[in-house]
Parts: sequence; C-alpha cells; structure tokens
Amino acid sequence: MTIKAYGAHAGDQPLVPLDITRRETGPADVRIDIAYCGICHSDLHQVRAEWAGTVFPCVPGHEIVGRVAEVGAEVTGFKPGDLVGVGCIVDSCRHCEECADGLENYCDGMVGTYNGRTPDAPGHTLGGYSQAIVVDQRYVLRIRHPEADLPAVAPLLCAGITTWSPLRHWHVGPGKKVGIVGIGGLGHMGIKLARALGAHVVAFTTSESKREEALKLGAHEVVVSRNEDEMAGQRKSLDFILNTVAAPHDLDAFFPLLRRDGTMALLGAPATPHPSPQVFNLIMKRRSLAGSLIGGIPETQEMLDFCAEHGIVADVEMIRADQINEAYERMLKGDVRYRFVIDNASLAA
Amino acid sequence: MTIKAYGAHAGDQPLVPLDITRRETGPADVRIDIAYCGICHSDLHQVRAEWAGTVFPCVPGHEIVGRVAEVGAEVTGFKPGDLVGVGCIVDSCRHCEECADGLENYCDGMVGTYNGRTPDAPGHTLGGYSQAIVVDQRYVLRIRHPEADLPAVAPLLCAGITTWSPLRHWHVGPGKKVGIVGIGGLGHMGIKLARALGAHVVAFTTSESKREEALKLGAHEVVVSRNEDEMAGQRKSLDFILNTVAAPHDLDAFFPLLRRDGTMALLGAPATPHPSPQVFNLIMKRRSLAGSLIGGIPETQEMLDFCAEHGIVADVEMIRADQINEAYERMLKGDVRYRFVIDNASLAA
Repeated sequence: MTIKAYGAHAGDQPLVPLDITRRETGPADVRIDIAYCGICHSDLHQVRAEWAGTVFPCVPGHEIVGRVAEVGAEVTGFKPGDLVGVGCIVDSCRHCEECADGLENYCDGMVGTYNGRTPDAPGHTLGGYSQAIVVDQRYVLRIRHPEADLPAVAPLLCAGITTWSPLRHWHVGPGKKVGIVGIGGLGHMGIKLARALGAHVVAFTTSESKREEALKLGAHEVVVSRNEDEMAGQRKSLDFILNTVAAPHDLDAFFPLLRRDGTMALLGAPATPHPSPQVFNLIMKRRSLAGSLIGGIPETQEMLDFCAEHGIVADVEMIRADQINEAYERMLKGDVRYRFVIDNASLAA
Repeated sequence: MTIKAYGAHAGDQPLVPLDITRRETGPADVRIDIAYCGICHSDLHQVRAEWAGTVFPCVPGHEIVGRVAEVGAEVTGFKPGDLVGVGCIVDSCRHCEECADGLENYCDGMVGTYNGRTPDAPGHTLGGYSQAIVVDQRYVLRIRHPEADLPAVAPLLCAGITTWSPLRHWHVGPGKKVGIVGIGGLGHMGIKLARALGAHVVAFTTSESKREEALKLGAHEVVVSRNEDEMAGQRKSLDFILNTVAAPHDLDAFFPLLRRDGTMALLGAPATPHPSPQVFNLIMKRRSLAGSLIGGIPETQEMLDFCAEHGIVADVEMIRADQINEAYERMLKGDVRYRFVIDNASLAA
C-alpha cells in the first residue's frame, strides 16, 4: 500500500511530503494507522546525516502511537481498533542472549524503526512520520492510557523507555536518592518516572529558568549545576545519576555527588568526547560510569503499563507535519516543553 | 620505643637508614616485629612526593608481615608469637557506613599505614620499612600460611587485596570469563586469584615476552594487546576486566571485549588522564567503567584465608634494606618478577 509520509531526500535538504509504500500485512504482522509521532533528537541527527550511515529517502520517527487497522492470521495479542505503540525497534535476531532476555535493544541484529536494514522496499525501514506502519507483533506495544492521552503517550516510546530502563536496572525506588542531569525530552521523563518509582529526585540543570519547571515535573530538589555551593550540598549523597545530556560536558562535576558504589549512566553519546573523567573519582568510592541504550520490548510494555496506572505522560506541543522543519530548529535552541508531537492526520492535507 | 627504619628526608633524596619511635602498646594495640615488607609502586610515588601531600621523614611500606611481640590488655584475637599482617590501613573513623560495612578503605577518615595523620610522633604514620609497628587490633590480620611462605605472603596485604576486592565485588567465579590487563605486581596476583576463584582467565599484556609467564601464573589464555586479531578474538566475551595499568592508555581497546553489562574496573589513577573513553562503547552494551581502591579489613582476612587454603602467595624477589633505592629503579623499568620484598632483619645491620 502507498501512504503519505514526511522525510528528506538528502542530509542537507529539508523534510518534504513523500509517498512511501508499506509491505502487505504478513501472518505475524500488525498494520497500524499512526495517530501521532513524537520528534526525538535522534530523528534530526539521522535525517541530517550527522550520524554515519543515513540512507535516503529518510523518514524518521520512532515514538509512534495509533490504532490497529489489520492483523495477520497468526496474531493473537492484538485486534483491529486496539490502541498500540511502536518504539525504536521493529525487529531483532530473536535468538541471541539479548533477545532471549527481552533486551532486544542490545541485540546486534536490532532493526531500528527507521534507517534499519529490511527486505521491504526501499531496503531500509521508514519511520513514524507517516500515515501507517506494518510491524511484527513481537515489537508492538499495548497502550492502556485513555485515548485522550494518546499524543502525550507517544514520547514514552523512546524518551520514556530510555529513562525507565536505566532507572529500573540500577534499582531506583523508595529509599534511593537519584539525580537527573538535564531537563529536556529525556530528563523531564526521568524526573516523572523516578518520582513515581518512589525515589528522592534531584534535578540538575544549567539554567536557573528551569528551576520552577523541574519542581513542577516532580523533582524534590533542583540544583543549578553552575552553582558550586548547591553542588557541594549534594556531595556523596546520590545513589544513581541519570545523565541525559549528550553535549560534551564535565563529568567530574557529578562523580563526587555519588555515594560509594554509585553509578552515573550516560544516555547520549557526544559528537566530540567529554573531557576525560578523573579516574580518581571512580576509585575513591568504587563509583561507575555506565551507558544505557533505549530499553527492551518487555520493559517497554512494563513502563507503558506503569505510566497508565500512574497517569504519567510526556509534556508535549502538538504540531502539523508541515511544521517539522521549524520544530527541528526550535528543538536545537531548546525551545520546546518538552517534546514535539506530530498530528499524523495532518499528513493527509 | 626507638627502632630502625628506612626512609627519606625529602622527595628528591634517596632512602636512608633512620631511627624512628613507635608508641607504647595501648590497651587495644598489637605490637608487631616486622619480618618482611613488600615494595608497592605507591611507596615510590609517595616517598618521591609524586603525589600531593607527602610528609617527611617518609617511611613507606604497607605490605607488612611479622610476629606479634606484645598485645594490650583489651586484645582478645592475638597473642605474642602469632603470625600477622598489616596492609594499607591502620585506622579509620569506625562509625561511618563504610566502616560498618567493613569497607574501611572507603572511609573518609581512613588512616594509611604511612603518610596518614596520627597523634603519634611525628604526627604522621610511618610504614613497614621498619623493625616494628604498633597497630590497633581492628586493623591486624591473621596469617594462616606456613611460616616459610611469609616473605611471599607480604604482597597479599596490598597487591592481593587490591585485586581480590574487585574480583569478589563483581562476582568473578565459575562460569565467568575475566580479563586481567597488565601483568605486574597487581596483575600477577589478579591472575592467580581469578584462576583460584574458578573463572576462565584471559591475561592481557603489551609484551610478547610475558606470554609464557602469564600462562604459568594460571591464565587460560594470553592476549598480546598490540595484536588486533588476538584482541578481536575476545570481542564481547568477557564478563569483567580488571585493569591494573596505571599509565595512561587506550581504554577503548578493551570495552568491545566486554559482554553486555560487563564492567572494566581500574585500579590505578594515571598521573595524566587516559584518552577520553568513547561513550558509545558504554551505551551500546550497557557497559561500565569503574574504579576500586584496595579493600576492607574483613575481606582482607577472607583473602588471606582463601590464599592459605589454596596455597597462593606472590612471586617475590627478596632484597636487603640497603637495596631499596636500587629496587625502585628496577621497578620503574619493570624489572621485577613480580614484587620486591624487604628482609626486615637487614635493618639491624
């Protein structure tokens, strides 16, 4: 089937309306009419060929929510009309240790929702800036939020799981004190999730102007990281730091805030390296610097169910498809609270 | 009491014979006649004032073994004649979380065996390059090895526990594959201990000449890290890497060898930073870079008991006190297999 989409023909060109095709709905497939799609910073990196290996035409989008339109004969978990989501992953090898552990995000054969290799035309996956998508049922998530929440649920599929997975892996919960560094698309979800998980949440921002916002998002405390006294007040107090900032910055400012055996997990890989961290800061309290990539399918479902139960959604600003290029420019300036979401109905215009 | 020791009056001067005093044996104290003392690379850094804060005169030495000469009235665990050891720690605050957890090595009030603040004259602790030492019973270790092993037991008090603690903390044992980077004072103990703990041990060295030695020490495999094919053969296979190399080096050569959730623990802080590690390597498999510092008193006893049971000692070369300066020069050239140990009887000469 041919559908409308929004994408780019080259890294130095703006996104424009495109006609793309989707495969026939196979026996294990779910065809989804996409209602909304969040805009992730990765979309911009990929479509502008700032990361290696972008294949064109490129249709970004991996924060997809919508309604099931058709299911294959073998599909048992979904039926037409169901509210569903698709995140960053639409396939994986399905037989490695990572897949067996439900951590398809770490599978070497993981197929991204866009720019991933696929037998379908045109040979690479095309994402959620489009009217519909066909995905194997193994990678489709159930959405239990009220339908009215759907636009604000979309960012959970990437920003939500990317913060949820490390928060859970490093046991953030009651009795734990967690730092969230950076209050943007990822960070604002990190604050909401860590708070709902029962932890004491300290938000770190470089901008005084975000202090009130962070408190409203659920932070118990906010530290402006340029303020040395405020930073010193957190010394050796945090069990875990979720660092959502991809821009190169001084990691050593944060290590001393961790208790013994504390971990700082980085969610973003900077284009140029961070200043080399002081090994001394790691050795003196057996601290760790770690990384985390999105999350697996089972834990994405767990996160969605948790968010539905706790009434958690992202803070979003809805746009039309023809505003995507403008939204990218605003995102680069940090001018979004906290995620743009495309109303995919506007693709038909 | 006044005793003979070996130490330096300034960072740019060689070590020379000194007379020093030890405090009276207090109610909780154990006075130890020192039989042997290992030479750790830290001794050299400290006595040459390559680290900040060296106080002179400086008497290094924190790999101490000997025999109990006298005990205070409150001492219950030791009696004259017992074989005992003292490692890097002779005091700590005794009331913080770290002390309560038996991880005095991470106590902010930890007092090092030399160059630590003490009320005793001359105001800082003096180490094991000396005839005797007086230590609170809480920081004295029992040695169950045969007396003939005593010289080779000395390095267990620092090199042994510094490798044992992270191997245990990161659960190295049967079914696990561990890399030991660097085959020196620390690394040779790491190989022996990891092997005895039941892990599959891969030793990494820059020098082809150490291949056979590493196998003899107990490594199942040896990889010369300059050999790209050998390195590639270990990709994504290691559960844990114990990196004993303090000199700045390319950490990114080792991260790809770790499996998902693998950790590389650094034991040494380089004088100038390592090249900044690629965050990508951490993120893609949720890997960690960690640090580890010596070990606590209970785990030091555990390690000594394990080594006695398994017949594990260090490989040592015995020297007289008047050979210490020469030994330092040889240590700097890597010309030692694998630890110098001072025969403290030679101090009387």
